[in-house]
This record gives sequence, structure tokens and C-alpha cells, in this order.
Amino acid sequence: MAAPIAFYFDFISPYGYFASRQVEALAARHGRTVDWRPMLLGVAVLKVMGLKPLLDTPLKGDYARRDVLRQARRLGIPLGRDLNASVGNPLPPARAFYWVKRHHPELAVPLAHALFHAFWAEGRDLSTPEAVAAIALPAGLEPAAVIEGTTSDEAATLLRNAVAASIQAGIFGSPTLVVDGEPFWGSDRLRDVDEWLACGGW
Amino acid sequence: MAAPIAFYFDFISPYGYFASRQVEALAARHGRTVDWRPMLLGVAVLKVMGLKPLLDTPLKGDYARRDVLRQARRLGIPLGRDLNASVGNPLPPARAFYWVKRHHPELAVPLAHALFHAFWAEGRDLSTPEAVAAIALPAGLEPAAVIEGTTSDEAATLLRNAVAASIQAGIFGSPTLVVDGEPFWGSDRLRDVDEWLACGGW
Repeated sequence: MAAPIAFYFDFISPYGYFASRQVEALAARHGRTVDWRPMLLGVAVLKVMGLKPLLDTPLKGDYARRDVLRQARRLGIPLGRDLNASVGNPLPPARAFYWVKRHHPELAVPLAHALFHAFWAEGRDLSTPEAVAAIALPAGLEPAAVIEGTTSDEAATLLRNAVAASIQAGIFGSPTLVVDGEPFWGSDRLRDVDEWLACGGW
Repeated sequence: MAAPIAFYFDFISPYGYFASRQVEALAARHGRTVDWRPMLLGVAVLKVMGLKPLLDTPLKGDYARRDVLRQARRLGIPLGRDLNASVGNPLPPARAFYWVKRHHPELAVPLAHALFHAFWAEGRDLSTPEAVAAIALPAGLEPAAVIEGTTSDEAATLLRNAVAASIQAGIFGSPTLVVDGEPFWGSDRLRDVDEWLACGGW
């Protein structure tokens, strides 16, 4: 069995959302699985790289607003969020994910899809453990357990370690796919990943 | 006749170089021509956006070094420049281009290809008018005229106005293609432009 494709993303990233809807089919076409690894753009972009948030960057922010809507149309992916709305606190959804990945691993990917859908298709706020627990959770996940898990020290530690590992691995953007050590940044590179997997690299 | 595709790029941009090798065939497939418009990343990225140069950005710089080599291999485009070498002064090649575009318009695109090739395939320095004039110029362009044109006030004004117009148009990255008012940033978006032109947009 070939190694899983590492899929790094932030739930607050629209391009991460677009990739989340395509990455499993992409991997399956090549007999691969996907290891979902939320990271934090607030750490990578703002702290480590010293840049501004994408949408707050002059010129590029306006382009991104237009491009996100255009990509959603092209891919037929629902987008119900006001791009100018505050993204809120990105920690609760990411902590919830890592806690579920640890304790209910089979529910982690369904939860990731549910979180992306709640945030990007429904425009919901995910800034608190209660808000995360209030989304349409996958069957088998109780809201009370999600709140308890998301607020646990364990979840905070799991996320902190995952983010540190992502920086250590050189990951700076959402989405980034790593295939057998080869990193591909950007949802517009999924076609490159497809080609790379088909031909074994170039 | 449909409007030309506006092609914004900086000669010091490797992704601009990659696009320069593909954009004419892309346009021709759809019965379009290309209007070549050098811009200055030093103005757009450093001054207007307030960001660092790509290769000096933590994490992203290392990724870009790897990605540039990978894209060159994939596209079969010669790359003979040390990516860590100083890019030098980007003004002379851009001024030379706009001067030639004004006085010998039929030689402007051949000159652009020659400049990209000298910089990226041969790794030459283009930091001075003399260095620009020393490359393999298109037939019909004399080195002495290139030096005189590149150092002229007219060339400086043409470039200054073109850069201001690019910022006004919201252009921030190299390459950017604008098709009927629709901007596409990044050499990995050429496939999107192809699709957009084929179907009339989405």
C-alpha cells in the first residue's frame, strides 16, 4: 500500500474547502488514501512568514474575493459565506478535528466535511466549542462530547503539536498536498498532483 | 476581432518566463492576440502590497525554489539561472521593451522572448542598458539603439506609466492574464484561461 497523501488545510481557507471536496476522489484514482491535517494560517502566514491575511492584502485581496467566487462556480461547490465576514477564531474547529481523529478516527473525515460545509456553504460561525457542536455532526458524535473534547487540554496539545509539525514540514499555505515527500501548494495544483501520481513524477 | 489578451509580467519572474513560452499559442488557439505588458513586482509586491520578495519569504521561498525547478522540468523549458543569484535591477529590460514597443512594435515580442531567454535560460545579468544591449537581439535591433532607447527619458516615462496603469488595473503578480476584463493570476492558471476562452466563461 502506497503512503497516504498528506492534506494540509485550514478550515477558514476557501481554497482548502475547494480541495476538501476533491482530494479523496483524486487519491482514490491512484489507490491512495488521504491523511487530513488541519494547520493554522494564522501561525504560518502571520507569525512565521510575517505576511498579512490574504483578504487584507492590497490588490491580492480583491483578486481573491473574485477568484473564490469564480472557482466555486466552476467547480459547482456551494458557497454561502460572505467573504468579508470575520473568519472568527479558527482554533475550535481544528481542535475538534484532532480530538475526534484521536478518539473516533473513523469520524474525523466526516467531521471535516461537516465543518467545511457549515462554515463555507452555510456561512456559520465556528468560533466556539458550542458553535462547533451545533453543526450537523456526523452520526455517532454527540454535541456534548464534542464540546468536552474541543475544550480539553488534550485537544489543545494535539493541535499545537500538529501546527508545529506542519511548520517544521515547511507547510505555509492551504491547501498543500504532500505526495511521497513532494509538496504541492494551492487548489489549482490538484491537477499537477493527479499527473504526478499518474506518471510517478517528473 | 476579439480583444487581445493582456499579459502582465516581470522579466525577473520565473513564472512570468514560463507563461511567456505558452501565452501566444494559448491565445492563437482561440483566435486572440497578446498584448505584452511588463510590470514591476518591486512596485506591486514590495511597495503597494507591503510584502517581501517571494524567494525571501520564509517557507514560501523554499517552496518556490523547488516549484520553479519542477515546473521547468515539467514544461521542458530551459532554466540556467541560479535562483539564489541577485535578480539585479529590473528597470533596464522593462524600459527597453517599452521603448521598442513604441518605436519598433513588430520587434517588441521577439525582444521579450530574447530578454527572458537571456535572463532565465542563460542566467545573464540585465541590470544595465549595456547588458540588455549585449544579449542576442532580434534582427533589426542594433545594440547602440537599444542603449540609447533604454536610457532615454521617454523609456522611463513609458515604463512608469505602464506600471501605474497595471497597479490601477489591480495587477499584483506575474504572470497575470486579463481576458475581456477577467484577471487570472499565476502560470498554473493558463489552463483556466484556455477553458474560459473555450466556453466563454463560467
